[in-house]
Amino acid sequence: MEIVSENKAHGGRQLVVKHASAATSSDMTFSIFLPPQAEAGEKRPVVWYLSGLTCTHANVTEKGECRAACAEHGLIFVAPDTSPRGDGVPDDPQGAYDFGLGAGFYVDATQEPYARNYRMWTYVTEELPQLVGSEFAADMTRQGITGHSMGGHGALTVALRHPGRFRSVSAFAPIVAPSQVPWGQKALGGYLGEDRAAWRKHDAVALIEDGARVDEILVDVGTSDTFIENELRPELLEQSCAKAGIDLTLRRQPGYDHSYYFISTFMAEHLRWHAERLKRG
Amino acid sequence: MEIVSENKAHGGRQLVVKHASAATSSDMTFSIFLPPQAEAGEKRPVVWYLSGLTCTHANVTEKGECRAACAEHGLIFVAPDTSPRGDGVPDDPQGAYDFGLGAGFYVDATQEPYARNYRMWTYVTEELPQLVGSEFAADMTRQGITGHSMGGHGALTVALRHPGRFRSVSAFAPIVAPSQVPWGQKALGGYLGEDRAAWRKHDAVALIEDGARVDEILVDVGTSDTFIENELRPELLEQSCAKAGIDLTLRRQPGYDHSYYFISTFMAEHLRWHAERLKRG
Repeated sequence: MEIVSENKAHGGRQLVVKHASAATSSDMTFSIFLPPQAEAGEKRPVVWYLSGLTCTHANVTEKGECRAACAEHGLIFVAPDTSPRGDGVPDDPQGAYDFGLGAGFYVDATQEPYARNYRMWTYVTEELPQLVGSEFAADMTRQGITGHSMGGHGALTVALRHPGRFRSVSAFAPIVAPSQVPWGQKALGGYLGEDRAAWRKHDAVALIEDGARVDEILVDVGTSDTFIENELRPELLEQSCAKAGIDLTLRRQPGYDHSYYFISTFMAEHLRWHAERLKRG
Repeated sequence: MEIVSENKAHGGRQLVVKHASAATSSDMTFSIFLPPQAEAGEKRPVVWYLSGLTCTHANVTEKGECRAACAEHGLIFVAPDTSPRGDGVPDDPQGAYDFGLGAGFYVDATQEPYARNYRMWTYVTEELPQLVGSEFAADMTRQGITGHSMGGHGALTVALRHPGRFRSVSAFAPIVAPSQVPWGQKALGGYLGEDRAAWRKHDAVALIEDGARVDEILVDVGTSDTFIENELRPELLEQSCAKAGIDLTLRRQPGYDHSYYFISTFMAEHLRWHAERLKRG
């Protein structure tokens, strides 16, 4: 584990960390904010933030406006990268933004040439939690998860497939049904092949149809988000949650788009929502 | 005036604007945040933020965490660029980061080849205020000014030389006495020549020695700022304010560095400080 950078912020410490990942057979970089309470040695809850297409750990770290609320509530905030990177890691053949580098989609690829490195599912659900739990003052019995767009898809699917692990789940403008939209069809087809049964395990709406459950979900999405109709389709999550009896709070935020201006506007509310649930007994 | 980008944020609107500047004989880009109150048509106070070396309008716009507080207090927040840019604008001969592009130092250059374009003093004190006052819902009778590093120098010197224009003045890690430090000596020498009398008008400590006054100043600087001893020298401002009877609140913030992690930590407090003074009578 190598500390790439370390900056005092909001009374705590913002770290960027690089480590050799066994899951992805590559170096991986993530950021972690340690609030003042963790700096004082107290074990604190962890909120995971999974980022969207084209992002690294840096986007939310620099633009997310997450630290003030994390310091207030005493939350550790971890932001992984969105794909493996580095020499020998294959990219989209055309270098497209929506597949390959920056677009791991939080799955373990089974298709060549991606199967060796593109194992973001194992990375974010096993390897990175182990590292964070062992190296930082993290209370791993109190975890929440959120994410944006592709990372909202990641947050929802990770939470739905790990019942009991997360006390709080939210998302910003998530892709809720990747099997039904162009971004998701390209990614799931490319990483997992054409067997649609494998796709269902990485599709929040399909997982809910197949019986997966969380107690409640908070989702914000902007009404001026240019991806809302063709890629995000929040109404599909609304329908599946209604059928399944999942308490979904879906807020269509008037005039907001898909950018970090939208995310940073609602970040503090999401973190308060997580903190309330992470504090309970 | 061309709107480069427009994003809803914190109930208001973040604009990036490009315009042909007569002052700098070049296109100039700035950002302006219009809080919800201004969006509703109300004229609101303006806080100017002058950025530091290497920055454009974008750094504070993306990383400054200024919008939540501006929305709360109803402040318009304007962030100009730090130099002219574009075809034909001369840079430092060696392309150094501390002179030329990204390093205008908020002076009107008298030396060639800089005199035509490097007129950031006129730009930030005359041209841009006129544009903002005429194009946006800005209450120009209520202005505050702040800045970071080179921009802290700019904020202090602009305020000291415009008595009565600003109701509030603050700075993050400002260069307080450019005549006495390497960054400032290079910049003032390069833009203004070797006549040290001309330098004194662009040196906050010298201006105070020469009789310029503001009522009060808020300054934050990190104790782990690597520039504090050789470039910023806050003790010189402390001494000159003490002698002059200027009410300086200088806070040495333990462990903070020179980055936007420092700035964003204290941004909300600075904006509250400005808002309190801008609300008065």
